Amino acid sequence: MASETAPTTGPTDTDAQTRRPRVAVVGASGYAGGETLRLLSGHPGVEVATVTAHSSAGKRLSEVAPHIDLGHDPVLQETSVETLSGHDVVVLALPHGESGRIAAALREEYPDVLVLDLAADHRLESAEDWAEYYRSEHSGTWTYGMPELPLADGTRQRELLRTAREIAVPGCNATAVSLALAPLVRKGLIDHQVLNAVLPVGYSGAGRSAKQHLLFSEASGTAAPYAVGGSHRHVPEVLQNLRRASGLTREDGLRLTFTPVLVPISRGILAVCTAPVTDGTTTEDLLAALNEDYGDEHFVTVLPEGVFPATGEVTGANTIRIGAAVDRHSGQATVISAIDNLVKGTAGAALQSMNLALGLPETVGLTRTALAP
Amino acid sequence: MASETAPTTGPTDTDAQTRRPRVAVVGASGYAGGETLRLLSGHPGVEVATVTAHSSAGKRLSEVAPHIDLGHDPVLQETSVETLSGHDVVVLALPHGESGRIAAALREEYPDVLVLDLAADHRLESAEDWAEYYRSEHSGTWTYGMPELPLADGTRQRELLRTAREIAVPGCNATAVSLALAPLVRKGLIDHQVLNAVLPVGYSGAGRSAKQHLLFSEASGTAAPYAVGGSHRHVPEVLQNLRRASGLTREDGLRLTFTPVLVPISRGILAVCTAPVTDGTTTEDLLAALNEDYGDEHFVTVLPEGVFPATGEVTGANTIRIGAAVDRHSGQATVISAIDNLVKGTAGAALQSMNLALGLPETVGLTRTALAP
Amino acid sequence: MASETAPTTGPTDTDAQTRRPRVAVVGASGYAGGETLRLLSGHPGVEVATVTAHSSAGKRLSEVAPHIDLGHDPVLQETSVETLSGHDVVVLALPHGESGRIAAALREEYPDVLVLDLAADHRLESAEDWAEYYRSEHSGTWTYGMPELPLADGTRQRELLRTAREIAVPGCNATAVSLALAPLVRKGLIDHQVLNAVLPVGYSGAGRSAKQHLLFSEASGTAAPYAVGGSHRHVPEVLQNLRRASGLTREDGLRLTFTPVLVPISRGILAVCTAPVTDGTTTEDLLAALNEDYGDEHFVTVLPEGVFPATGEVTGANTIRIGAAVDRHSGQATVISAIDNLVKGTAGAALQSMNLALGLPETVGLTRTALAP
Amino acid sequence: MASETAPTTGPTDTDAQTRRPRVAVVGASGYAGGETLRLLSGHPGVEVATVTAHSSAGKRLSEVAPHIDLGHDPVLQETSVETLSGHDVVVLALPHGESGRIAAALREEYPDVLVLDLAADHRLESAEDWAEYYRSEHSGTWTYGMPELPLADGTRQRELLRTAREIAVPGCNATAVSLALAPLVRKGLIDHQVLNAVLPVGYSGAGRSAKQHLLFSEASGTAAPYAVGGSHRHVPEVLQNLRRASGLTREDGLRLTFTPVLVPISRGILAVCTAPVTDGTTTEDLLAALNEDYGDEHFVTVLPEGVFPATGEVTGANTIRIGAAVDRHSGQATVISAIDNLVKGTAGAALQSMNLALGLPETVGLTRTALAP
Repeated sequence: MASETAPTTGPTDTDAQTRRPRVAVVGASGYAGGETLRLLSGHPGVEVATVTAHSSAGKRLSEVAPHIDLGHDPVLQETSVETLSGHDVVVLALPHGESGRIAAALREEYPDVLVLDLAADHRLESAEDWAEYYRSEHSGTWTYGMPELPLADGTRQRELLRTAREIAVPGCNATAVSLALAPLVRKGLIDHQVLNAVLPVGYSGAGRSAKQHLLFSEASGTAAPYAVGGSHRHVPEVLQNLRRASGLTREDGLRLTFTPVLVPISRGILAVCTAPVTDGTTTEDLLAALNEDYGDEHFVTVLPEGVFPATGEVTGANTIRIGAAVDRHSGQATVISAIDNLVKGTAGAALQSMNLALGLPETVGLTRTALAP
Repeated sequence: MASETAPTTGPTDTDAQTRRPRVAVVGASGYAGGETLRLLSGHPGVEVATVTAHSSAGKRLSEVAPHIDLGHDPVLQETSVETLSGHDVVVLALPHGESGRIAAALREEYPDVLVLDLAADHRLESAEDWAEYYRSEHSGTWTYGMPELPLADGTRQRELLRTAREIAVPGCNATAVSLALAPLVRKGLIDHQVLNAVLPVGYSGAGRSAKQHLLFSEASGTAAPYAVGGSHRHVPEVLQNLRRASGLTREDGLRLTFTPVLVPISRGILAVCTAPVTDGTTTEDLLAALNEDYGDEHFVTVLPEGVFPATGEVTGANTIRIGAAVDRHSGQATVISAIDNLVKGTAGAALQSMNLALGLPETVGLTRTALAP
Repeated sequence: MASETAPTTGPTDTDAQTRRPRVAVVGASGYAGGETLRLLSGHPGVEVATVTAHSSAGKRLSEVAPHIDLGHDPVLQETSVETLSGHDVVVLALPHGESGRIAAALREEYPDVLVLDLAADHRLESAEDWAEYYRSEHSGTWTYGMPELPLADGTRQRELLRTAREIAVPGCNATAVSLALAPLVRKGLIDHQVLNAVLPVGYSGAGRSAKQHLLFSEASGTAAPYAVGGSHRHVPEVLQNLRRASGLTREDGLRLTFTPVLVPISRGILAVCTAPVTDGTTTEDLLAALNEDYGDEHFVTVLPEGVFPATGEVTGANTIRIGAAVDRHSGQATVISAIDNLVKGTAGAALQSMNLALGLPETVGLTRTALAP
Repeated sequence: MASETAPTTGPTDTDAQTRRPRVAVVGASGYAGGETLRLLSGHPGVEVATVTAHSSAGKRLSEVAPHIDLGHDPVLQETSVETLSGHDVVVLALPHGESGRIAAALREEYPDVLVLDLAADHRLESAEDWAEYYRSEHSGTWTYGMPELPLADGTRQRELLRTAREIAVPGCNATAVSLALAPLVRKGLIDHQVLNAVLPVGYSGAGRSAKQHLLFSEASGTAAPYAVGGSHRHVPEVLQNLRRASGLTREDGLRLTFTPVLVPISRGILAVCTAPVTDGTTTEDLLAALNEDYGDEHFVTVLPEGVFPATGEVTGANTIRIGAAVDRHSGQATVISAIDNLVKGTAGAALQSMNLALGLPETVGLTRTALAP
């Protein structure tokens, strides 16, 4: 194959009517950026025009991500406002902080470009929450990229995304927990003051930077909790989502205990959420509430009674699968969701929101079929 | 090496004063039986005299467990009361039900032999609990083999084991949860009506029988919950332990939600236990309670504030490591314990109890050092 | 999502001109059948009309393969000539032997249907080879489904597939080794009498039947060779391919030592092939020969000098990646290829051949982009 | 447990007659150093007096290696000639180069101390080989720590170790290949000019430094070759061993093609070695030669005909298991060995040699029983 030949651009491509939106992916050598490119490689509605990186700038994409075939093999550019000019869409796959800085510069220069930020910088509306959990200055709040989130007024987050030009892509763990719990908190089926989530999670969520505790030999054969005791940064994001979904306020005592556990898988989050049920709530009630909110959602699968999801069922897919049960002995509900942290938890969510903001069909370039085994 | 030569038995071995107790391991081709043999291969105080199996009977040990070196390579015998005669100790590593049957026959024939049952048959004191969770007839209640369990009267379970001739070895998940929670329930530091445990667990706990969902290709890359919603058989066992530790009765509303999640490790259980704290309980209170009960325990390590265990730290060791914290936002305690399900959770616990019952030093043949990475 | 609704079939679908070919997949609950369905779920040119199984017949597809979304959720049928009637294409994903029997019955009844056999039954042309390696009666020889294989007459195997109605899909290991070595044996660059291949392979190649040595706990943490010493059934298949590619005959002493090693990955074959070079062969010669044969091949990537493939670069993709070097100290060539055994090694190869036989573009429904990490 | 209390030293310990040798382990925070400590924690004949590290100096051992229990929890010292004074044994677990420097300083100051170097610095006798493969200055040649290596004069390497004060511990891959091939090359059963070894290897062999390609997410699900084409540094070491074992000289054309493949296991090397057989060599001949050389070796297991080793059978053990067969079709021998790279390949080999040099029983502190599953 002639892998390094750039795609030929014929005259029809210059026709403004038919030209596909040009996308730049910033931070293409990391996992989130790479996954964005993987999905874009199969997206018929947009064109990957530019890819950038930091320490890998100057290399070809095939050197840092040999699994991706864009049809050509671009050289990774330095990340700058200049290299990002002339695009319709910019996807920022950077560490938080860096993301906020380049976003601010970019918005000033190119106010019309659609920017999607995969980092946390623009997710929280509360500057106090930001300061407490991220210990830096707040960059502002963008439209939250979780189309399926039911809102207290009966609409969906989806509607807000159709006109957005600045989209904050949700955190992966926050996605798994928020979508699992929102319908139940909305309906008052569980005690929102005693929410609990334990999340076996894969290593790709920790990024591609070389750190000792992420080495294969350290990770293999162990289950290792982190951020125990309340420090995880997705906690305020989940609570914000649950407030938006339910209309509860900060005074209503929404409280969540949140414990991620690294387990030796590359991709995947299993959110095991529990809470005492309110009087009389049954398994059927839980499933009815989930089906009511998600029955029409293309990328949400509510499982039948007695069936619970595993992360291996969603690898590479943009789906979230959710099962629920009430334990009659303990009086608690257990709601379990599974996602691929890099797809539904990151790059897939970004593309889904991008599709909405570009006026494309919401599902284009995304799949419900996973890779297994 | 001449691996098939039987060990020579010199004259001093025939001296009744110094003769080492003869041990039979029943079900040696499974994981629990194999692990018992692995540990016994390094135990200086007893002699492995007989190993038995079912479908593997007639094979040599090296064919079913090539990793074990007993100094000789015994042929696996059929399991029968006859092949088990003439031993001082019999360790039953059989599926529950089978275990109860052979135990009954054995006790009748050889009332003096020390029998340790690795299966569940003799753990529960309540025939009602047994009937509900195991759906078969109760085999009776043996002395529970968890030496470190603090009892409501201020003693330890250890004392009961010194004179026991029938020992029910605890369930692996039950060990991880019971030892983590007992000191806190005893002291009333957490709400015992809203206990919760989510346990990433390894595949060896599911045994060595060939089942599709245990295949490498099914297990690799996934986190898969099971027994969701209250059906796990270790629930009544944990509650029984917590009642013994605290003096609470069945009327006091001890309630536990329990969700194991299979993750792709062979060995290991990480018990992530949560519960609302009672008024004013701090992280220091949790750690003080744990240290008070376990400070002198050789095989229990209570970790310093801010440190939590991972299963990879205990692989092959007979230790349980425990960390704890109070989340000041959510008002919940998180207590996390890690064990090797085959050692502290099964075979190590058996040997520790056996040592007590034989009057040997409790720690002989067991190690606090794990294999890592 | 309304996952169990069958797709609506509008009037235009009945138009014979535009009707998509109807495909039946036999053995859909296994890995090869499942992977065929996974790929077909994204194939726009054909319709999955029927899926069958043996012990899983009567279940819905979502029960045995929850990762696949065909747009509807078919019930698995019993496998019989009747359930397979009325299709344009039948893909047999059965154990060898079973495959030959149903194929014979099917061909008799429906001589026009395109049948692809993923099993070994129809790969070998020599009944003697078949008898020696498979110890059963030979079922005959079908057109071999390896489009890229260069033939001694200067054509490709591709040409034979355009008119085939009976296609024997190659073995996965045979694909990895044959494509790596064929160009070099053709050109006489290596000593074809001292060929050697060692293949770290994943567990999915061993199928989904529950066998003890395939359990996660057995497989995790080990590298385990099998079929050592010449007994592997892909040996005669590779030699047949190399003869076809080179024009060498059985008298020319083609000889291959072949050692697969199970390693703890689900998917992937890395074929490490070595042979003494003939006089003066350099690394450049090896790469030139590979590029000459494969430069135009969409699904073959010949890597630059000094770069070698890893299986993680092809997971889910229909590509084979090949690197080569001459060791100047040892005088041997090392040629390494990587494939996904379930895609390029099985289901992807089947679809590629099906596309050719149906007159569709060869690459439709197949991708060069892999899933990583 | 009171883990930070230093061991009490009673009066008899001060008795020079019975004092246990004091050992210092240099580089205790890496995998080789950690494994040395793990094994020493169960070694009754020596005392771990000092542990040192570089970037981790100042931490307690439990912070960098929480799986090890020495009975006390030492603080890691800086590595210097001063901190290493007053010991009987110093084990250097450092990167090559660093190892040579500290060794030189140490020998000058304390000529009587027994030094074992786990790095490569002192393995090769040829300064030319060293220069070619390591591109630095040669540090000299120490006694090679492979007790079982048969020598051309009919003795074993063991004899040389009894009086050694400077021991170069072998490379892990070199151990697996050398012990597998030495008996066959000695007897002339295989063509020593066409030796080939492909080695699926685990990640712990690459060390504990944080590098991107060693991350779990990179390593999981892939088989990745490296050092392809002759550049691996263990090649000259293997050839040196085979010359010593056989009496062949550099002029005799010993040639080895050597390809390691990283596979997702932490520990383990499977050396798949092949070579054309010389006239008439049978499987029985191979096994007879192996048994002749290793029949009395405690840590070498030659497997029966038809049985081949897997790395999972030796995890944590100091054993090497070897199987062999002649492929009658291809005329090649396949000899496969399995070791734990950190034990028989590094720390176990070091302790075995140390035992010899200290006049202790060779096997003390080492085990033939592995951890499985």
